[in-house]
Amino acid sequence: MNPPEFFEDFEIGASRLTPARTITEADIVFHAGHSGDFMPHHTDAEFCKSQPFEKIIAHGTMTFAIAIGLTVSSQPLNPNGMSYGYNKIRYPRPVFAGDTIKVKVSVLSKEDHPKQLDHGIVVEAKEVINQNGEVVMYAEHLIIVKKRNG
Amino acid sequence: MNPPEFFEDFEIGASRLTPARTITEADIVFHAGHSGDFMPHHTDAEFCKSQPFEKIIAHGTMTFAIAIGLTVSSQPLNPNGMSYGYNKIRYPRPVFAGDTIKVKVSVLSKEDHPKQLDHGIVVEAKEVINQNGEVVMYAEHLIIVKKRNG
Amino acid sequence: MNPPEFFEDFEIGASRLTPARTITEADIVFHAGHSGDFMPHHTDAEFCKSQPFEKIIAHGTMTFAIAIGLTVSSQPLNPNGMSYGYNKIRYPRPVFAGDTIKVKVSVLSKEDHPKQLDHGIVVEAKEVINQNGEVVMYAEHLIIVKKRNG
Amino acid sequence: MNPPEFFEDFEIGASRLTPARTITEADIVFHAGHSGDFMPHHTDAEFCKSQPFEKIIAHGTMTFAIAIGLTVSSQPLNPNGMSYGYNKIRYPRPVFAGDTIKVKVSVLSKEDHPKQLDHGIVVEAKEVINQNGEVVMYAEHLIIVKKRNG
Amino acid sequence: MNPPEFFEDFEIGASRLTPARTITEADIVFHAGHSGDFMPHHTDAEFCKSQPFEKIIAHGTMTFAIAIGLTVSSQPLNPNGMSYGYNKIRYPRPVFAGDTIKVKVSVLSKEDHPKQLDHGIVVEAKEVINQNGEVVMYAEHLIIVKKRNG
Amino acid sequence: MNPPEFFEDFEIGASRLTPARTITEADIVFHAGHSGDFMPHHTDAEFCKSQPFEKIIAHGTMTFAIAIGLTVSSQPLNPNGMSYGYNKIRYPRPVFAGDTIKVKVSVLSKEDHPKQLDHGIVVEAKEVINQNGEVVMYAEHLIIVKKRNG
Repeated sequence: MNPPEFFEDFEIGASRLTPARTITEADIVFHAGHSGDFMPHHTDAEFCKSQPFEKIIAHGTMTFAIAIGLTVSSQPLNPNGMSYGYNKIRYPRPVFAGDTIKVKVSVLSKEDHPKQLDHGIVVEAKEVINQNGEVVMYAEHLIIVKKRNG
Repeated sequence: MNPPEFFEDFEIGASRLTPARTITEADIVFHAGHSGDFMPHHTDAEFCKSQPFEKIIAHGTMTFAIAIGLTVSSQPLNPNGMSYGYNKIRYPRPVFAGDTIKVKVSVLSKEDHPKQLDHGIVVEAKEVINQNGEVVMYAEHLIIVKKRNG
Repeated sequence: MNPPEFFEDFEIGASRLTPARTITEADIVFHAGHSGDFMPHHTDAEFCKSQPFEKIIAHGTMTFAIAIGLTVSSQPLNPNGMSYGYNKIRYPRPVFAGDTIKVKVSVLSKEDHPKQLDHGIVVEAKEVINQNGEVVMYAEHLIIVKKRNG
Repeated sequence: MNPPEFFEDFEIGASRLTPARTITEADIVFHAGHSGDFMPHHTDAEFCKSQPFEKIIAHGTMTFAIAIGLTVSSQPLNPNGMSYGYNKIRYPRPVFAGDTIKVKVSVLSKEDHPKQLDHGIVVEAKEVINQNGEVVMYAEHLIIVKKRNG
Repeated sequence: MNPPEFFEDFEIGASRLTPARTITEADIVFHAGHSGDFMPHHTDAEFCKSQPFEKIIAHGTMTFAIAIGLTVSSQPLNPNGMSYGYNKIRYPRPVFAGDTIKVKVSVLSKEDHPKQLDHGIVVEAKEVINQNGEVVMYAEHLIIVKKRNG
Repeated sequence: MNPPEFFEDFEIGASRLTPARTITEADIVFHAGHSGDFMPHHTDAEFCKSQPFEKIIAHGTMTFAIAIGLTVSSQPLNPNGMSYGYNKIRYPRPVFAGDTIKVKVSVLSKEDHPKQLDHGIVVEAKEVINQNGEVVMYAEHLIIVKKRNG
């Protein structure tokens, strides 16, 4: 089955699952340096011992970046789509080094673009799921997609 | 002036500006590898010549991660606050290698937490601004903050 | 068209082209550190001024690694194939920072596996091609592939 | 004893052993990102549990790059030699995070260069050996070397 | 309390403690590649088994760099100060992956600048302390600071 | 000529020059993240325009780490020597992206170890020199070395 290309091809409720990736200590160290976010929750194991989870947790911004990476690398580039932004990013559970995450991408809703008649806006839900089947991140991704008959 | 610590300390409209950071080609290359997002807009200079901006653009997820990095590293950790998620992330303009970005953090709104009486939810607007004063990213950050007299 | 899955599906002469990736100064710096190969051809711009190409050239081992990365990331994983090794890696031209490379993957030959009756060996030619259409690396990749009716 | 410099100095059967290097989880994570090769054998620990080795294995391209790094960094640069390519790269055993590898470099054969009378071709065998003395990679490296009396 | 700004503001004996950071295997691997220092004490776990500490130790240059990073990132930039150099760097104990270090910064001494009448030289002691309270690095940092009434 | 091995082998005034390495923008970006030192002199090109050198300068801690890397990687490990610390690190000139540095290592002085009769202390001067022959860093390295007849 080909991935959807035009606005008309996106079916509400359709979903796919990306490959998975194991998050490592190295990823967290690398992300701290790359983002400049050295919050003790991510870089100070002694501090974390006093916290509810008792160990270092991954940056939310890293889970987000890797989730998008998993999503875009597992499907051919759609030349008719353009990322417009995100709504409602939530982190219901932490991600730890050693967790393996994948992304369930579902078409949540679609509507006409308010200004561009030949485009629509597709909202994809991106649920990041760990090896225990728990959702660790949720995001709604807005994509502007060309209409086939626009 | 001390940074706000309790829910009551956040004043709607108050704002601060973070230090700035220059985004480099190396950052984009690192981020592609770290996130696994090798979309041609970020890694293929020849493809980009055919695109509206004619050159490689930074990943939105990187701008987001670095913006949060600038935000958290420029103020002491608030032990009474906990990031809850984001609403409405938008990317009105691209970021290119060589651009220098900083973040304007403003208190947008605050409300009681629906379930935890002793906490409130503060919404901070995070505007990422380039060296020309243009907004390149906008995000609304939800923070759960303890009430002083909660 | 689905990618070949079983030995029988590989057609001699069939070929595909991967997406492209721009090699940057950062890649060469990163690879020097990661591999530990700090030969002056890759890390000493002053030395290079005295050499035929007059500038820093990419490591052959990096071109190889990125070529394989482009190859495996642009097609679904074939659960019936297993990389066995390479023959005849050549570097007819140098790669410089700023070059954009892609890989042409062609089925060069196929033969029965000498010991495993239910498998065959497929040899894929991997030609790494720069933005000028020049071949900068050539490799023959040996893949052991399950037979459908093996 | 000085390392060989001219074609005449290479003695068939002569060998040397490089220093060793421990391959870490961080190396595999870096290499996945740098090469863009996120095959589940290298990045998905859950997938690997179902595979023969039951854990993540290092990329063959990384073992190759690090082996060459160990080789070139443990001997002075020979200004009279130029890498021409490789023949017959094989991976008889996997490399895991925690393994410590070194390279045995041996002169396998030498012959006149077919076109350049004042140069010869030296073939060096590069055997990558782990901490248990097992060969994990084998490569034949072709080096074009100036003749002293060419 | 504001951090000292002018030469006159530095009080001998005053001290502060930075946030802490856990040193990881990934940090040591990064630093080896970044610095090019692949001494077996830092990269060869088998060699280290024969050494007094029996495991890989962090590079002294990395402990130094991270200590300075912790120091500068935990206080606003002082526009009136300029780093002049260091005296007497010592490493009384090794740092291992898993250790969590922080820096105690103390004003050790201050004197007039020999040539610039409107500046003085402040010497800060930087003691890097691990999770057991042991000093693992000691450095004396020379800072040229403007006088308020210079 | 073999490198000195025992205390007696070090001759005051003897010197050697390491290979050179070009410092890149990527190195500075990488070092900022690795060390956590995001001072604007190293990461904010707009800020730097207002400073005396008008462009980003390399971290002193990076020049130090790379200088030591060049030093140790260009000579076999001396099993009889142990780094004890440094005295008097100075940075007379800045290092910029694009500069190529090498290290002149000279034996500055030697003396008996105050407590260990069978060891001495050798002080090596390490001068980091850029492509214009200017000294950009100076350090005195203290090495405890076994005596041959100790």
